[in-house]
Amino acid sequence: MTPVTGFSKLSKSQKIEWLASHFQGDSAEEMRAIARFWNSDEGVQRRFDEFSENTLTNYYLPFGVAPNFLINGRHYTVPMVIEESSVVAAAALAAKFWSTRGGFHARVVSTRKVGHVHFLWQGDARELTERFEIFRGQLVERLLPLTASMVQRGGGLVGVTLENRTNDLADYWQLKLEFETCDAMGANFINTVLEEAARQLQAELPVVEVVMCILSNFTPDCVVECHVECPVADLGDFAGGMDAATFARRFKTAVDIARVDKARAVTHNKGVMNGVDAVVLATGNDFRAVEACAHAWAAEGGSYKSLSTCTVENGMFRFSLRLPLALGTVGGLTKLHPLARISLELLQRPSAPELMQVAAAVGLAQNFAAVRSLTTTGIQKGHMKLHLLNILTQLGADDATKVRARAHFADKVVSFSAVREFVQQGLAQ
Amino acid sequence: MTPVTGFSKLSKSQKIEWLASHFQGDSAEEMRAIARFWNSDEGVQRRFDEFSENTLTNYYLPFGVAPNFLINGRHYTVPMVIEESSVVAAAALAAKFWSTRGGFHARVVSTRKVGHVHFLWQGDARELTERFEIFRGQLVERLLPLTASMVQRGGGLVGVTLENRTNDLADYWQLKLEFETCDAMGANFINTVLEEAARQLQAELPVVEVVMCILSNFTPDCVVECHVECPVADLGDFAGGMDAATFARRFKTAVDIARVDKARAVTHNKGVMNGVDAVVLATGNDFRAVEACAHAWAAEGGSYKSLSTCTVENGMFRFSLRLPLALGTVGGLTKLHPLARISLELLQRPSAPELMQVAAAVGLAQNFAAVRSLTTTGIQKGHMKLHLLNILTQLGADDATKVRARAHFADKVVSFSAVREFVQQGLAQ
Repeated sequence: MTPVTGFSKLSKSQKIEWLASHFQGDSAEEMRAIARFWNSDEGVQRRFDEFSENTLTNYYLPFGVAPNFLINGRHYTVPMVIEESSVVAAAALAAKFWSTRGGFHARVVSTRKVGHVHFLWQGDARELTERFEIFRGQLVERLLPLTASMVQRGGGLVGVTLENRTNDLADYWQLKLEFETCDAMGANFINTVLEEAARQLQAELPVVEVVMCILSNFTPDCVVECHVECPVADLGDFAGGMDAATFARRFKTAVDIARVDKARAVTHNKGVMNGVDAVVLATGNDFRAVEACAHAWAAEGGSYKSLSTCTVENGMFRFSLRLPLALGTVGGLTKLHPLARISLELLQRPSAPELMQVAAAVGLAQNFAAVRSLTTTGIQKGHMKLHLLNILTQLGADDATKVRARAHFADKVVSFSAVREFVQQGLAQ
Repeated sequence: MTPVTGFSKLSKSQKIEWLASHFQGDSAEEMRAIARFWNSDEGVQRRFDEFSENTLTNYYLPFGVAPNFLINGRHYTVPMVIEESSVVAAAALAAKFWSTRGGFHARVVSTRKVGHVHFLWQGDARELTERFEIFRGQLVERLLPLTASMVQRGGGLVGVTLENRTNDLADYWQLKLEFETCDAMGANFINTVLEEAARQLQAELPVVEVVMCILSNFTPDCVVECHVECPVADLGDFAGGMDAATFARRFKTAVDIARVDKARAVTHNKGVMNGVDAVVLATGNDFRAVEACAHAWAAEGGSYKSLSTCTVENGMFRFSLRLPLALGTVGGLTKLHPLARISLELLQRPSAPELMQVAAAVGLAQNFAAVRSLTTTGIQKGHMKLHLLNILTQLGADDATKVRARAHFADKVVSFSAVREFVQQGLAQ
């Protein structure tokens, strides 16, 4: 490629043409063909184009649903957006299994969010502390014009503290603001309030140097819990041919391993997040924020651990998940993205806490199905069925070949080369 | 919603109709209208439908590009898929800035991946260790039919060790297998080899209980580094009106804060991952795996820290990023997803290590632009410009109103209610 000036000012078609001009033949044509992913409705397309910058087309991710989620006694069909095969199927399978065993029990522990004015103060610590005590009330009052609307909805600024961090970094202090943001994720609201708080701090104490103002995506006080439980004997249908007690013991061992082995914990939690993120994406929330927080939280206490836990006691099997999760059902893209809006409609217009519960339930369901596969048949059997289909599609196999291939590979190891060989032999016949 | 049996067997239209039947009026129509996001080419649509289960339609994410990335002396226009406004603009801005200051210097430290057979052994540790020493060679040989194709491509199984983890959990041992997977991310390959290794282990030592076999997404030996550097004086253009030395000092302070404050580190790294994930998604890689690994790695050493570091020494400003990143440019969805294929074409068919370097450069660029905004104008100014546009779109504002609103809010705090009021007043005039 070549350096370019004024690229962002080009029209979408000009941008695509500029890209295509760097390629020849088929590659150039392929570049131009990204226009075939435009929506035929210009108004719809323009909305997506405006979400970001230098947009050329729409990237498709599969939008699917997992029915039969019984959460706190209510049935949901959950929208899921994820490119990885098996995730929706696994969630749906686990949902159905638990729907006849009491379903998922979820509760929001707390929903508090936090942001900081990070600043430097070279003066005396006591002086700053004393001046802050006087200033605190004025600050809250001066922020009211920005927080009033959130207060009306039942939230607002709920805490202002001064944090002395000079032991960590020379002259480093924080103004820590805590918020309830109701059904909004609240990033814009929090950042706007923080920047005003910084201006007020600077006006009050001109010698302070504000370094930056920003919400924290680490929300250890915005937490949801979810669990399933049933008598061990009732696990039989799902035990992949083992007796229920063996299955329960092996399942618990696998979860315990993810409590002590970081290498396993990362993949275990990745499985939880397969489910959580699919709901986060479907509802127009920000998966980077959710991911960063969940994994940092998994590392609390000094060693990175599984977010889920399992107990088998007195004949009862219990599988639980606890994670911080800051989601919104208003603001951001939730109403702007037509498919996010449909997702929220499908969930019957949940509050943010209700959406937290749904996402946690899907994360737990996904984790349950994954650990069950791992400890019974192995993960490749189910995964490979879909992977086989993808390889066949890539090789251009017709439907008849796909059917034959599925039968052929039912008891064989699926690899790209083995499938290619099978398809080529079929063609040669 | 209601419980349902046999949902996955319904056709796509039947599934949509089933959902719509739970709603009335506009909501039911909206549910049916998700079909308008189908691609008009049935073959293309079917490919997307097959990626996952219970798929109903395509979820659109904006596919954009950031031009002017100079990485290791080569110019790239980088495909980015992200729903969050400002990310592509920020990456493009930083890319352009650094393109005249030597660009991004990236190198892959290592690309080794790992997987485990997690098993229980109740016998004597020394006996197991001794029997393993004899068994190791046979095992590698017996896995050759599965690894041969990868060996031909220059990779394969590169290490087999026995790990005694009985101090962490009773009877818990691991067979740890290390792999080079060349340009593949390698999940299916690794899991297939591991399951066969487990069968061989079980055959050799029947009293062993294999709990599970699975690759680890924690890849501390699959690491990429990237940095930018220039004389402090050359930062002037980008210092938002400050003198270059002040900007450099404040920038470094902000990064240092993310080294000592977890609440800030999470958001700081979230910013890095905004850039990384946009490339990961665009190229058909798995962002949950990448996220889990990066954040667990950020917590190495017991406290969660920034992935990037900044130094200002002898008049030189240097900003670096180091993170584990397991990506593929073959296998998985990379060739199956038409837009992932175009992304890789746009990047001129990179090897996996080259893609790691590009993703790291975009992560560093995004982090650079974000910290620069935070420490100069504040993050809301740039962000709110796009947020304003989104709110206006949501309120159905026409183009003339959008132009007037942009002028009006140039020096005011953007909030949903303020914009609504502005639009309503405009209508009332």
